[in-house]
Amino acid sequence: MNAPKISTKPPSGMRDFLPADIARRQHVIDVVRRIYGSYGFVPLETPAIENLSTLLGKYGEEGDQLLYRLLHRRDALHRGLEAGAKLVAGLPEDARGSVGEDPSREARTDVRLYESQLADQGLRYDLTVPLARVAAQYDLPKYFKRYQIQPVWRADRPGKGRFREFYQCDVDVTGTSSLVAEAEVCGAVAEVLHALGFTDFKIRVNHRQLLRAMMHHAGIDLAHEAAALVAIDKLDKIGQGGVLEELATRGIDTETANKLMLLVLTADGEQLFGFDLNQVAQGPKTPIKRVRKQITDPIGIKALDELDELFDLLAATPAGPHIQLSLDLARGLGYYTGSIFEIAVPDLAGSLGGGGRYDNLVGMFGKKQVPAVGFSLGLERILVVMEERGMFPNLSIGPDVLLCWMEGTPRAEALRVAHSLRRQGIKVEVFPEEAKLGKQLQYADAPGVKAPVAAIVGSEELKAGQVTLKHLASGTQERVALEGAGEAVRALMRQ
Amino acid sequence: MNAPKISTKPPSGMRDFLPADIARRQHVIDVVRRIYGSYGFVPLETPAIENLSTLLGKYGEEGDQLLYRLLHRRDALHRGLEAGAKLVAGLPEDARGSVGEDPSREARTDVRLYESQLADQGLRYDLTVPLARVAAQYDLPKYFKRYQIQPVWRADRPGKGRFREFYQCDVDVTGTSSLVAEAEVCGAVAEVLHALGFTDFKIRVNHRQLLRAMMHHAGIDLAHEAAALVAIDKLDKIGQGGVLEELATRGIDTETANKLMLLVLTADGEQLFGFDLNQVAQGPKTPIKRVRKQITDPIGIKALDELDELFDLLAATPAGPHIQLSLDLARGLGYYTGSIFEIAVPDLAGSLGGGGRYDNLVGMFGKKQVPAVGFSLGLERILVVMEERGMFPNLSIGPDVLLCWMEGTPRAEALRVAHSLRRQGIKVEVFPEEAKLGKQLQYADAPGVKAPVAAIVGSEELKAGQVTLKHLASGTQERVALEGAGEAVRALMRQ
Repeated sequence: MNAPKISTKPPSGMRDFLPADIARRQHVIDVVRRIYGSYGFVPLETPAIENLSTLLGKYGEEGDQLLYRLLHRRDALHRGLEAGAKLVAGLPEDARGSVGEDPSREARTDVRLYESQLADQGLRYDLTVPLARVAAQYDLPKYFKRYQIQPVWRADRPGKGRFREFYQCDVDVTGTSSLVAEAEVCGAVAEVLHALGFTDFKIRVNHRQLLRAMMHHAGIDLAHEAAALVAIDKLDKIGQGGVLEELATRGIDTETANKLMLLVLTADGEQLFGFDLNQVAQGPKTPIKRVRKQITDPIGIKALDELDELFDLLAATPAGPHIQLSLDLARGLGYYTGSIFEIAVPDLAGSLGGGGRYDNLVGMFGKKQVPAVGFSLGLERILVVMEERGMFPNLSIGPDVLLCWMEGTPRAEALRVAHSLRRQGIKVEVFPEEAKLGKQLQYADAPGVKAPVAAIVGSEELKAGQVTLKHLASGTQERVALEGAGEAVRALMRQ
Repeated sequence: MNAPKISTKPPSGMRDFLPADIARRQHVIDVVRRIYGSYGFVPLETPAIENLSTLLGKYGEEGDQLLYRLLHRRDALHRGLEAGAKLVAGLPEDARGSVGEDPSREARTDVRLYESQLADQGLRYDLTVPLARVAAQYDLPKYFKRYQIQPVWRADRPGKGRFREFYQCDVDVTGTSSLVAEAEVCGAVAEVLHALGFTDFKIRVNHRQLLRAMMHHAGIDLAHEAAALVAIDKLDKIGQGGVLEELATRGIDTETANKLMLLVLTADGEQLFGFDLNQVAQGPKTPIKRVRKQITDPIGIKALDELDELFDLLAATPAGPHIQLSLDLARGLGYYTGSIFEIAVPDLAGSLGGGGRYDNLVGMFGKKQVPAVGFSLGLERILVVMEERGMFPNLSIGPDVLLCWMEGTPRAEALRVAHSLRRQGIKVEVFPEEAKLGKQLQYADAPGVKAPVAAIVGSEELKAGQVTLKHLASGTQERVALEGAGEAVRALMRQ
């Protein structure tokens, strides 16, 4: 065939996972699944494809833009093009950025109209909105504790450590406003990190209603609230000066901005940028007391009461020693209504995960109101840090044994020996082609194969019901009965 | 919030998997992974999104149409609409089915042109083409034995048991033409089915080159070959009469059609539709002998030689007792070049899986030629049959213990008891809200929760460092030291 050369790379922002990658990913996923399960969470999976009506408007304007949309098929596409063209034709001339003009101009209403006509399905953007849809659709247990480990897709600009397809590992509790639910999701996530070997993480905690009260206290009006939140959320990245500058740019006067900044620093003080876990362990409740002196708004007082109680509960979970009140934490997703969380480690700019309470999201699906809280761990972020720190145990991939066969050995006999070893619990790869023994042994040690033991079958072995085992690292070799060969292989692998 | 009611169902052809579904899916996937691993296959995963250039032209015209395409984002969409419009404008008037006309008319060239301009990425359609891309891209072991268990997407009309998102469980060997590779993939698949409890499956085997020789022998010219293959592939669904009718419709004269049909029946004879494994066990090689008498074409003789040898090898694997030569088997995918396989069970119209040799696919990516063979199991098909036959073991989902707490118990103390039990290997759900004990115990038995044991914590238990365990099925109750409570829970669960 004379096909033109096609690029064999995965698309930009996507990755292939070769066996060694999968071993590491599977190691983390197995731990997550085991710990989440031990907390009584049960697994859920939802389809990659959702209706756009489910996804749109849940993640903010930026999120809407990052959704992957699926092109209609033929007939629907025909109708979509037609409807898009009609919509564009109906626009006043000056609102149109018609096809053929500079694509960078502002008023590209036509493209947006076409977009809405050409697609009505998109790819999953996170695991929280699908859970909310599921909670509205099915007759679930009153307190539904679910975990979900699946990929999500965002058409973001790819960059270092930023992918367009990545896995989230979510735990959520729906159906209760009890802070026990917050404590359970934070406890589960902390225990996952412990089980993976993390000790130096902090779980930053804030509260959406406390943030509102702070805004109110500082004198920021409703119109500027969202902008101010975005600015203070960057405190750990751009520092106080940076935040004050950004607040000014966003039209907040100096006095107000300073007031807000002072309030944020009330909680964190000098430890804001530090990772001194001893200080954290003194108790995250001291900062709450300091903030109480500033906040008079009833909404704020209620939020502080909740945090107070939550921190007591968290002290009884593995999350306890890691908790830190972080008044600069805002988190971008629009659907949070109460406590919010984020996990930080010193050697990663982004977070390992985040979460919070979202009591209105299920209700957005137009049926009952169902309170909910959850936490999401980012698999890729965890893997990056574990890789850099060398935190992975020795993960075996590939076969235990490469089965080699001497010239003249019937291949069916080699397959029978392989079958017998597999029955004894050994992972066996059969060398597929006729080749000199030396070449076969060399292959056992090849990159990506790395079988620790070779099993050699020739006419003598077959006659005696035996197999020759060769430990490749030491070169030692022994002939054993095929029947007990599994044990012998295991013994060699322990060498 | 007063949002309009949004549909909470998953999109057509897509499914949500609730915890009990996941337990069954995970059970099968765990078995597949264990057995594939024991055959020395190593895991690979590829992204859901591929470039359309990778996917197009690999699955035939029908496959191309069933690909999910991802809409370009804003700027690229703008350019795409523009380019599409230009292409359509450049068409002669009569070749255009312009926007605004009846969408059912034949010449909708404009839509196809737009389609190619609006998207250049699509969703994974199977796991074989991505493997071929990977084999062309990376420096893999010479004989790369990989397994891959991931969802694929096809924009097919949904129907009973036909989904638009479904999982495939593939094993493939790249890098060798040796029939040992065929034997290994068939052996692994048969062993998976055995491990799941299947005994009555047959693995139907045919050979693409033998099919060509049969066509030649019957006198079917190249132009009618594809159509004839499609027809005889339906033999087990529509019977001899149906196939002959379809051959006639497709322009093949009666004599030729009869000749082809006789040839097909040479192998299968009266056992074609039966599931008499005793007959199969007599040896699949007898039919090969019968076919040999008919075929004189060297390509056909070579194919028969290969099948002969392959059946000898398969006899040494768990696939052996299930093999059946099936000359009516053609399989739709265009990329097969040698042996082809399909798994049938009596109580399912479709197949549980299929595969074959595809020696030219990796080469289609424009680099080296790499021979390959593989087998794909359909997770959903397996689940359907296992469900209908009641083949699942008792799969525990949900917590072992519901932790209940008496009024007045500090919630932090309840969380501490839960933590202690989890440390002892018990899956614990904590009742999140204040409620009468009776209500809590009732919840332990609720659908979707079904904890077998309740652990009750009150002031007396806390004082004594104990916990009360209640076995819900029998109602028996005992108070035990918290320290050894894990063992006690396990004992109760065995009751």
